[in-house]
Order: sequence, then C-alpha cells, then structure tokens
Amino acid sequence: MVKVKILSHKKEIECNKEDNLLDVLRENDIFIDAPCNGSMVCGKCKVKLKNGKVDSKMNIHINEEEKKQGYILSCASKVIEDIEIEVPSKLSTSMNEMKIEGSDNNKDKKIFDKAINILKDNSLDFNKKIFKKYIELDEPNLDDNISDIDRIQRHIRNNFGYENIEFSLNLLRKIPLVIRDNNFKVTITYELKNNIVYLIDINTGNTEDEFYGIAVDIGTTSVVVCLVNLKNNEIIGKESSGNAQIKYGADVINRIIYSTKKDGIKLLQHAIVEETINPLIEKVCNKNEIDKEYISYFVVAGNTTMSSLFLGVHADFLRQEPYIPPFVKSPNLSAHDIGLNINKDATVYLAPSVASYVGGDITAGVLSAGIWASEENVLFIDLGTNGEIVFGNKDYMMTCACSAGPAFEGGGISCGMRASNGAIEKVDIDKNTLNPKLKIIGDCNPVGVCGSGIIDIICKMMISGIVDRRGKINKELKNKRIRFNEHDIGEYVLAFKEEYNIENDISVNEVDIDNFIRAKGAIYSGASILIESLGMDFSVIDKVLIAGGIGNSLDIENSIMIGLLPDIDRDKFDYIGNSSLIGSYLTLISNDAKDKLEEIGDQLTYVELSVYPTYMDEFISACFLPHTNIEQFPSVKNILGE
Amino acid sequence: MVKVKILSHKKEIECNKEDNLLDVLRENDIFIDAPCNGSMVCGKCKVKLKNGKVDSKMNIHINEEEKKQGYILSCASKVIEDIEIEVPSKLSTSMNEMKIEGSDNNKDKKIFDKAINILKDNSLDFNKKIFKKYIELDEPNLDDNISDIDRIQRHIRNNFGYENIEFSLNLLRKIPLVIRDNNFKVTITYELKNNIVYLIDINTGNTEDEFYGIAVDIGTTSVVVCLVNLKNNEIIGKESSGNAQIKYGADVINRIIYSTKKDGIKLLQHAIVEETINPLIEKVCNKNEIDKEYISYFVVAGNTTMSSLFLGVHADFLRQEPYIPPFVKSPNLSAHDIGLNINKDATVYLAPSVASYVGGDITAGVLSAGIWASEENVLFIDLGTNGEIVFGNKDYMMTCACSAGPAFEGGGISCGMRASNGAIEKVDIDKNTLNPKLKIIGDCNPVGVCGSGIIDIICKMMISGIVDRRGKINKELKNKRIRFNEHDIGEYVLAFKEEYNIENDISVNEVDIDNFIRAKGAIYSGASILIESLGMDFSVIDKVLIAGGIGNSLDIENSIMIGLLPDIDRDKFDYIGNSSLIGSYLTLISNDAKDKLEEIGDQLTYVELSVYPTYMDEFISACFLPHTNIEQFPSVKNILGE
Repeated sequence: MVKVKILSHKKEIECNKEDNLLDVLRENDIFIDAPCNGSMVCGKCKVKLKNGKVDSKMNIHINEEEKKQGYILSCASKVIEDIEIEVPSKLSTSMNEMKIEGSDNNKDKKIFDKAINILKDNSLDFNKKIFKKYIELDEPNLDDNISDIDRIQRHIRNNFGYENIEFSLNLLRKIPLVIRDNNFKVTITYELKNNIVYLIDINTGNTEDEFYGIAVDIGTTSVVVCLVNLKNNEIIGKESSGNAQIKYGADVINRIIYSTKKDGIKLLQHAIVEETINPLIEKVCNKNEIDKEYISYFVVAGNTTMSSLFLGVHADFLRQEPYIPPFVKSPNLSAHDIGLNINKDATVYLAPSVASYVGGDITAGVLSAGIWASEENVLFIDLGTNGEIVFGNKDYMMTCACSAGPAFEGGGISCGMRASNGAIEKVDIDKNTLNPKLKIIGDCNPVGVCGSGIIDIICKMMISGIVDRRGKINKELKNKRIRFNEHDIGEYVLAFKEEYNIENDISVNEVDIDNFIRAKGAIYSGASILIESLGMDFSVIDKVLIAGGIGNSLDIENSIMIGLLPDIDRDKFDYIGNSSLIGSYLTLISNDAKDKLEEIGDQLTYVELSVYPTYMDEFISACFLPHTNIEQFPSVKNILGE
Repeated sequence: MVKVKILSHKKEIECNKEDNLLDVLRENDIFIDAPCNGSMVCGKCKVKLKNGKVDSKMNIHINEEEKKQGYILSCASKVIEDIEIEVPSKLSTSMNEMKIEGSDNNKDKKIFDKAINILKDNSLDFNKKIFKKYIELDEPNLDDNISDIDRIQRHIRNNFGYENIEFSLNLLRKIPLVIRDNNFKVTITYELKNNIVYLIDINTGNTEDEFYGIAVDIGTTSVVVCLVNLKNNEIIGKESSGNAQIKYGADVINRIIYSTKKDGIKLLQHAIVEETINPLIEKVCNKNEIDKEYISYFVVAGNTTMSSLFLGVHADFLRQEPYIPPFVKSPNLSAHDIGLNINKDATVYLAPSVASYVGGDITAGVLSAGIWASEENVLFIDLGTNGEIVFGNKDYMMTCACSAGPAFEGGGISCGMRASNGAIEKVDIDKNTLNPKLKIIGDCNPVGVCGSGIIDIICKMMISGIVDRRGKINKELKNKRIRFNEHDIGEYVLAFKEEYNIENDISVNEVDIDNFIRAKGAIYSGASILIESLGMDFSVIDKVLIAGGIGNSLDIENSIMIGLLPDIDRDKFDYIGNSSLIGSYLTLISNDAKDKLEEIGDQLTYVELSVYPTYMDEFISACFLPHTNIEQFPSVKNILGE
C-alpha cells in the first residue's frame, strides 16, 4: 500500500502500488475531468505532482513547460510510492460553478411561458393524476374496529368513489402512528391510475399546502433540477451542476463502455443519483425551506443512455448493432427504487425514449417546442453532447441522432470548459493586430473557453484569416499569438499568462478546431440527410428551433458562418433553451401533457443515420468551414469574398 | 466497558458496566428463553456464572441449591465486571431441535390429503394465477429494433393475449443480459392480476421444471416452512424451528411491548425473517438441492401480531382498546420488501386476519378444516400460544380468542420445554408408590416437559390424588417425590437428578399447575361463551377439531379429564395438526382456495370476549380441575368418584 495525498482537497487516500492514478482518484470521489475515460486521448486529467514519483507513460499532452511545473497525466501514471499531488481547481470546481440557462430568470420565464401557452393553445389541461387531500377518518371504537387500512379505504370509497387502494410496505409501516397523532385527521397524497388509488404518503393533520414536484433534465454533461409547487404550478427554485458521471467518460459511448466494467453500472448510477441529483435536490429544498418528504412527484427527461444509467439498467446493447434500448416507456417506479432523496414512495416518471440515440430529452423537447401542433415545418436541433434532430409538423415527425461529442459544452477542446465563471464566451479579433478582445463569464480572469465561445472564436479566426476553410492555421501570418509546436500543430493564443497573471496560456489549436468542425459537421449533415430522406431540402423549413444548454445563448449568425446551421433567413431561427427541462416541467404539471408526451414517443419516426447510404459523404463534406460546397452558404461566400 | 465471556458458545462480548445481562445476551444474538421479557416473572433466563461477580436483584426463581451452583437470573443481573458464564444448552439448542408435527410423515400426509379432499369435494380447482412459461422471442434486427421490454410485451400480447406487463426495476436490470444469453429463448414467471402480467422472473433457456413455492406457518412459538413443487403441487420438504422472536418475549403481548422499544420492530422483524425463516428456507432448499432463485410464490399464515411483525409494521394498537389491527388483508408484497431470501420479486401473500387476536393462522385453519363447507356444527380450537376458537358451519362462523399463554407449547412452566429431544411427553403414575414412568421424546435422558406431557402429568397427578381439583398438592401424602419449598410451594418430582445423572431434578410445582389451569380454563371458557353467545350449548356440537403444534398429538381423554375440552362423545374429536400450515399450503397451490380464504376472512364474525359480560365468571369457574361445576364433566365425576 502507498499513500496519495491530495493537497488541493486536504485528503489522503491509500492505494495499492502500481494502481492507475486516475482510477485511484475516481474511486475516492475526487472529481477529475476525463472525457476520454482514461485512454490518453483527451489530455484533460492532468494533475500537478508536488512530491514523490510516478511511473508515467509517454504522451503528447504534457508539454515541456508543464513538465517543468510538475504536471502529469493521471490516466497515464501508475502510483509507485507515496506522493503528494494537486488536482487543478478549475476541474474540481467546474461541477458546481456551471452557469446554465437558469441564470437569466426573466429570459427563462419567457421561454417557460411560451411552452405553457403552446399547451393552452392546443386545449391541453393542467390537470393532474396526483392529488393531496385532507381527510377526517372516523375514529375507531369497539363497534367500529376495522383495520387502519380498511378505515382509509372505506373513507376513500365513501367520499371519492374508488374501491381499491394500494400502498407500499414503507407507507403501511407509517400509517398506525400517523393517523393517531391527530385524532385520525390526516392528509393523503395519492396517484390515480385505472381507478385505483395508489397512496404516496400520509401526514398527520392538514398538509395540503405542502405539495411539491421536481422536474429534471439529465444531460450527459449537465443536470438541472427544478422544484415546482404542485398546488399552483409555480417554479420555486432551480439548481444545476455538472453530471458527476463525467469522471467516467465525456460522452454516452464512453459511459456505456465504463458501465460494462465491474460495478460500472452501480458507480454510474451512484454518480447521477447520489452525487448529482440528490445534492441538487438538497440545495434547492434548503434554499427554499421545503421538506423533501413533501416531494411527491418526480419527472425526468434524459437521453436513452442517461435514462438507463439513472435506473442502473444495463446499457451496453444501446451501442451495439442493432442498437436496442432496454426500455423506452417509463416503468412504474418509486423514489426509493432509485435512491432519490425525496419521499420514498414519490412517483417517478421518465419521459419516453424513441430509440437508442433519441431519448426522453427529445420527446420532452418536442413537447415543449410544440412541433406536434405546428402547421409549419419545424427543424428542431438539440445541441447537446449528443446532437438530436427532429423535422416535421403536426402531421409527421422524423428524428435522427448524431454524435457531436462534448464540444458544444466545452468538452473535447484543450482549453474547453463548461459555461462557468472564467469561461471566454465571446471574442472579437482585431483584423490588423490579430489581438483578441475577450468577454469572460463572471468578468474575472479567463480560465478556458465554453461552447458558445468556441463557435465565436472559430468564426472570428476564419473571418480574420487566421484559419482557412479546412481549419488549418495560416503559417504565413507572422504574429506572436500564432505559433506551432514541435509536432507542427498550430495554435492561436487568446490569453498569454503574463497578460492576466494566470498559470498557463489559453489557446485554441488545430486539434481543437478539427474536433469542433467534426461536431458541427455531424449536426449539419444530420439535419441535411433527415430532410433529404423526405425528398425535401432546407428551403421547406419554416422555423428552426435550437435547444440545449450550450452557454447563455447561441449566436445564430456565427453558427451559420461556421456551417453549423443552414444559411437560411435569420428570422426563422429561435433559441428555445433547455427544452428537455421545460418538457419535463410540463409533464409534471399536466397529465394531458404527459399523455401527449407518450403520443410523441410513439409518433416520432427514427432514421438510423449510420446505415443511411449518403450520410458519410454528406458528413465529410460538412467537415469544412462552413462546407465543402460553399454554394450552400451564400452569405458566408459573400463575406469571405469567394 | 467490561467483558462477558460465554463459555458455552465460545464467544466473548463487550458491554457497558451496569448493563443488564439479559439485554447484553439478546443484543449479541445469544438465544435465551425469556418468556416474560425480562420482568423477573418466569424465571427462565437462568445462566451459570463461572467467574466474576454480577449485581443481582433478589428474586424467587433461584433456589439455594441453584445459588450454590452459581445460577443467576440474567434479567435480574447487572454486569459490573468481566465475567464468564454458561448459557444452559437446553435453551440454546431448543430452537433447532424442535420436533413438530412434520416428524411423522405418514400421519402428516393423511392430514394434508384430507384437507385437499375437502377442496375437491367442494369443486375448488387447483388452479394458479402464477405461471412459468418458456417462450422464444423474435431476435431483433435493424428493421425490428423495438426495446427489450416492448419485445417481451409484444410476445405476450400476440401469444397470450394480455396487453399490459409490469415488472420491477430489479427485473428490468436483469432482462438485457438474460434474454441475450441464449438467443432470446427465455422462461418467464409471472402472476396474472386483473389481466395484467406481473413479471416475477425471467431466466435464460427453458427452466419451466424449476417452479417452486413456499408455504409457511408463523407460530408465536414455532415456525414451519414447507417447500412445494408448483408444477405438481407436491411437498418437497419441510423444516421447522422455534420462532427466534422468543428471546423478546414468549407471547404476543410481550412481543408487542418489546416492539415499542427503540429499534424493537426492526429487531423482531429481523428475528422472524433473518433468524428464523431464511435459515429454514436455506435448509430445506439445500437438502433438496433447489435453487432459492426459483422460488416464486410465498404464502404465510400467522396470527395478527405475527403478520404485523413479519412485515415490520407497528403492532402496539393491537393490544390497546379498541384493538385495531393495522391491516387484515395482505398488501401487495414482493420478497425483497421483507428481506426473504428467495427470488427478490417472488409474490408474498399473507392469509387475511379477522381481528387483532384472530389472525391468518385461523382463516387458513378454517380453510383446511373445511368448516365453511360443513353441514354439521363444528367447534374448531387452535391450541397455540394464543388460543383461538371458531364455531359454526357452512352458514355462519363465529370466532373468539383467548390468551392461553405458552403453556401448551411448553412455556410458562418451570420445567417446560418445546417438543424436542428430552421432552417428557407422557407419564404414568403408580397409584401406590406414586413413582412416574416417563415416555421421553428421542428416548434419551429427560430435560423437561412438553405441552402434551404437561396435560398428561396434571391429569395423572389428579387421578392419583397428588393434586386436588384446585391444583394444590396434597400435603398429607408422605412421599419423597412430593416436597414443599421455603415459600410453601409444593412440587412433584418427575426425575431426580441421581436417577438419570442429570444436572437438576425435574419437577412440576404448584405455580406451574396454576399457570396451566389458567391456560386450559381460558380455552374452555372461551369455547363455552362463544357457543352460549348463540344461545346454544356444547350438546349442539357435531365435531370438535383440534389444531396446533402442541407435540406429537393430543390425548383427548386426558384433555377432557383436566377440563380443557368439553366432556362430550369422544368420537366427535379429531386432531387435525397444524391447520394453519395446511391452509397456507392450499392457498399456495390453488387460487380458488385463496379466494375462499379471503371469503372466510370476510365471513368470520369476531366476538370480543373481554367485553362479554359473563366471560370473567365463566373463566374463573373453569380454573379448576376439571371445572368448578363438576356436573359439566360427568365422566370425570365418575372416575374421581365424586
């Protein structure tokens, strides 16, 4: 056994000699960004060795400068003696400092209201199948000595007209004391299904006013929890953070691979429930002084992999042809089945998936975007770690998925980070000096670049001629911000460490640009093929709705410039925020919306891009700035003067 | 902290100074008989102090002889320093050595067959709602890529005609791997309820032949587990032991009192499930080489307190006027809710109770005894720790309960023990010498007296004039076997230690006889009042069925002689064994029987004796040998020559 002291966390852990350092850190719940899941590809899991030695494999991610400072790549290092390390703070805090769409409350409210109005416009009621009602039971005596359960059942039969009640053992254990605590005056919470009353909770006295639900969006990268007052449907509070599963891989494929390891599924389920959602629930409840026991309904939307892992269900067949999900419709679940720290018997509902790569986040997104009610042709793009696309109107809806990778959320980019404090979200580049003017979230020193920032930077680098349309940096330009390393990989420096007194230069290199181009190419070609499969083209689009939590907002113009979005009338675009969360919220407050959501799940026709004959060609053509065929982007052609 | 070394168990435990010794032993799972639950009444929890000192309260249970030998009463003793003790082996082994009705297989089979024939004679089918079926699912491909769950559902819809399936999260977690292990050829186990298929299990390949259930009788004192092949309804094996809850009190009242202590319910539930039933399941499955995972159905019958504690449900209101049970009908339960070590999703069903003191053991007993189908008037008496009585026929059934205490099962008697090896089960007393001739279970040295033995001994003592009709020992008789202690309490010695080279004399004293007379008086007066409440008397009885596990059998003649049973035609009596277990078995193998059982639960009319005006008088009159009014027992009058 040897010791690993993590100075930054004031923690000391023991491990076996020869253990992999990344594994050791993960097993001990030290948050460390490792999108490639320890395969020495992403170079994100750097830590600083302060004392002792490790046995590190050669890798391209640690440069000479970093080496001098003591940086090592944890996935490439075996612990061979007692060591002391520092895990960089930007990594360890990024989980909690994420800035997600919830930050701008006014804008947020508008987006939610818009979705609510879609329901109203289509005569969907804000009805619920979950109720909380104060009742006064008859007090028992020797002549009326039926059991506690029969007493409750009799009251429900006589007053509400339902014959049958069901309840968990957990609830049965509470009942005798709870009903006697205030002379058989109680409040029952129940769900009505097929005329059967499923008791969720029973409280002493009248607690009708304490009736809450939670809507959740589980993204591959980030998670949002929204606390709702079920009495009046108001949103009480919202909290978000990174998905703690990130330490097991940045995208769904890496997570699935990790899930097949020993205890992998358990660890991944623990990461999302115990390390991500439960702390968010705790936080939002504490802030608003709400007793978690009164949370009776929980609706969650996530992609098919997130849904599987949330339940701890084997997910490996999602990524193996013929790509079969274990389930698409929500099983009947209670909070305690999953370990959610709310009322044990709270009903848990998962938005239905469509296929292995089109999940509940998309059905929920479609619900809130109102495509199912639209006369116009809508192109819906969810820009997440996975990119999902829906095209259609009230008569038909097609969908496909493309693996964009984490680039839109700041992953897969050497200086990428999530949209938290220190993230560069906007850049202007002076055409003459090539000096950048940075807009940084939180107005502090720059730490990295977030998703919306990278779109902006690549667009500006292209316009200023720093990169060409292949994404290569122009070697002709002589400028201190442009440099090439020993492997001849070019980079553009956004911030010199001397400028801001930070530890390292912040730059975007050709590998980053290449990664990003592939991400945006996947989205563009996916949309293109989906519409083509119907014998149409982009000209038939009446509306483009962009969803996803890529930062504060998405700059449409820039996105078209780099070829992420089609070059059509800018008025047709709308950014609709985290549509998955909004759909989850609508489902929570309206049973009609829930029924509609199930309908959407049945209605969406899935197109498997990977077997679509021309997809690969289209993808390769789209891996250009903005596209191999510039004619598809007339306004870019204009600006670039080609 | 001080140390307690238990030499007999080769175990050393630590406790706080001043801790009560009985509590310390219980908390450390040292089995110790303490029927009165530590209130210094029963004198059963004696242990031998070999080294060190304890702080013991004065009590009447340790006589001079025992004191010399080092005996202390553990409930009366505080640990004040390191000690070494021995816990008498007859106590620590009685749990496992119990000899219950299962020992005589031929007799047993006859009793079971009789009950089965009652069902057949009344056209009840041996149908089941639980099924195990081999199915071959379509293998998925890119054109048929519905989810695993939808695939199973589709097969069930197309082949069995049921639209909806439900399944636990536990099962969902198994499905993806299980179905792929043998090309989508699987065996499903399911329960059908309201046309919904509730999946219990899914196995790779064809396991139709491995389809098992368990029927259980949970007695306050003893527990029997019966393993059944659900394919052909055959009983594969049977195991029984004491109820490990005994350490927390001998009767239901003491158990309920213990349940109100901190963690009391948990400990009691643990004792019945983890320490009693699970080991019995393990044993019966191992002996018969059966995989516990294939046990899909579990039916249990027990009194209302046992049912509550089996589920870990608060039981305190059972013993408080107006005596309200938490539930009477079985909630929907799976094995994992309770911690049963069989298939996690196995259906668990509890025989319905009628009232706080007439439980599922009685409804199950009535089912197997066939009273519900009888033209004749049947008096049914269950002689357990609680005595329950049913009187009626196919048109009506009345029931009442009386607290007999554990006397019939060898408890509450100083030398009492369960019907295991070493128990005196029969005695003849020579009228002249007053010497006893003992019949001992297992043909070994005597250890104590079991339930059937105590009936025999008191009867013979009465006939030979050793006790008078009040239960007092005749002081006039000069015999070495008759002696009086310093408190003037008389006793009759059944076995001198020198005769058998055993540690202590075995004797029956006036306190024992008094305890027993109260037990038998409760039963007799209960039956008497129940029939009287209908305006009838014992002459209307066509049949008396005696149930309960009081030993190998019940001697009817002796039972009448001491006034336990009414003095009517001996041909009318029948001993029907453990009718609760048989009823539980019938419920397991026949859904018609289960429906009938529920009907019986609804049909039985409960008479609360404690509020019945003349009950107390009748009880006091019955606390005589055989009765204050000897005219009720003409044949006894005859023999005694009065």
